[in-house]
Amino acid sequence: MSLGKKVVDKMINEDAFSQWLGIKILEISEGFCKLQLQVRDEMTNGFSIAHGGISYSLADSCLAFASNSYGIQSFSLETSISHTKKVESGDILIATSKEINKTNRTALYYITITNQNKEEIAHFKGTVYRTEKKWFS
Amino acid sequence: MSLGKKVVDKMINEDAFSQWLGIKILEISEGFCKLQLQVRDEMTNGFSIAHGGISYSLADSCLAFASNSYGIQSFSLETSISHTKKVESGDILIATSKEINKTNRTALYYITITNQNKEEIAHFKGTVYRTEKKWFS
Amino acid sequence: MSLGKKVVDKMINEDAFSQWLGIKILEISEGFCKLQLQVRDEMTNGFSIAHGGISYSLADSCLAFASNSYGIQSFSLETSISHTKKVESGDILIATSKEINKTNRTALYYITITNQNKEEIAHFKGTVYRTEKKWFS
Amino acid sequence: MSLGKKVVDKMINEDAFSQWLGIKILEISEGFCKLQLQVRDEMTNGFSIAHGGISYSLADSCLAFASNSYGIQSFSLETSISHTKKVESGDILIATSKEINKTNRTALYYITITNQNKEEIAHFKGTVYRTEKKWFS
Repeated sequence: MSLGKKVVDKMINEDAFSQWLGIKILEISEGFCKLQLQVRDEMTNGFSIAHGGISYSLADSCLAFASNSYGIQSFSLETSISHTKKVESGDILIATSKEINKTNRTALYYITITNQNKEEIAHFKGTVYRTEKKWFS
Repeated sequence: MSLGKKVVDKMINEDAFSQWLGIKILEISEGFCKLQLQVRDEMTNGFSIAHGGISYSLADSCLAFASNSYGIQSFSLETSISHTKKVESGDILIATSKEINKTNRTALYYITITNQNKEEIAHFKGTVYRTEKKWFS
Repeated sequence: MSLGKKVVDKMINEDAFSQWLGIKILEISEGFCKLQLQVRDEMTNGFSIAHGGISYSLADSCLAFASNSYGIQSFSLETSISHTKKVESGDILIATSKEINKTNRTALYYITITNQNKEEIAHFKGTVYRTEKKWFS
Repeated sequence: MSLGKKVVDKMINEDAFSQWLGIKILEISEGFCKLQLQVRDEMTNGFSIAHGGISYSLADSCLAFASNSYGIQSFSLETSISHTKKVESGDILIATSKEINKTNRTALYYITITNQNKEEIAHFKGTVYRTEKKWFS
């Protein structure tokens, strides 16, 4: 098993909220992550569409897994998201990361979320800080 | 009951996710909102701290309630958040909005989240689009 | 001449700051813009590299031209930029826009700036408000 | 002379672009900076108002000075700005920083820009990386 897979397995096993969200890992490699989530009724808000926190949480998990996949503990410094299309209960969301930049101490990722019709529903940008602490020594 | 309170009551009654989060409304007035949430184990992630999506969701609900409190339907265009302090299970979070700017069609809010020790744990900025549709006619 | 070209010609002719920056239009079409700028000594800062305001200004002009190219007056609501590589005097920067989303009243653009070695030096995201006012009636 | 003042004097003396902008330092202390700029015709754009790059550049200089004032070299990772009111030639802008968070390696600043009528014209948020390199040894 690759280091990235090993790290993310450990992360998601201990991640109660990602489990509540029903997040599935579609793909993991160094600096890359692809996740899936199916929207349930309990994830919707007062407009009868998915709460903005759902797609943010999916993207934020994707950022965490992509940036930690090198085996170095990393955490989010700043994130932004634009919700570009309504998401409804039953929709299947896929978050795909792109590593824009990486230095010794920081990295920048762009994450796009699409639905089952391949329509883009959210655009996310995240900057992480890369510590010196390894996941496994 | 004020219009803002009436709108937000309607929004939160239909907002299953805010209910799962256990969000409580502390204060609502035109353009202003103050919310509370207590972090539970099922909201934590692989680092044993609250998932970034929890404080984002609280801030995003606060943005929605503050911006819709005028009785005009509004929705988020762009949001960003910086997580500045770890949040643990049991922590009590309070989100307080500040209206930075408001025009006929858009508005900008800044939301600060503090914990039970009055420490700031997240800083959120959100831009909304204000439609022409009223909540109650 | 296309409407987009006509609008942007008018905009840049009246845009004293873009002229000071020496911005050249490489390409314009509906919702798309590609600009060039060569960094001069007077654009550098205390670290002997280009001031962050230079690449921001280039990206912001690119956003303005791309979003106004439909002939409808548009203005920026929220913009963010990450500077990912140092820029030095003499460098030739190229900003290229990508339209991520467009509705009747708002639009979202992603702009990447590269240097003469095709290295990415900045990543910019901009949300605009689209008025109902035409550039030419 | 305080360390912060000494650092910023050095920075601004070598900062050709801040000089072109006519930036004046009103106040500097550890983690704090207040700057002034008067808008000139050559800073305006195709809408006959100040180019968005002008207020961004002022805020970005304010971020650089505030974060470097501790005597440790720091640089911007991610910045965002919302332009909330039009700025015209002749306007006098004042940028004031607020340190939101500071750790060993990163810091977050919020900068508000007002005009001569004390109206807020822009809101800026910036995350910096703090190196281990001192300005003066």
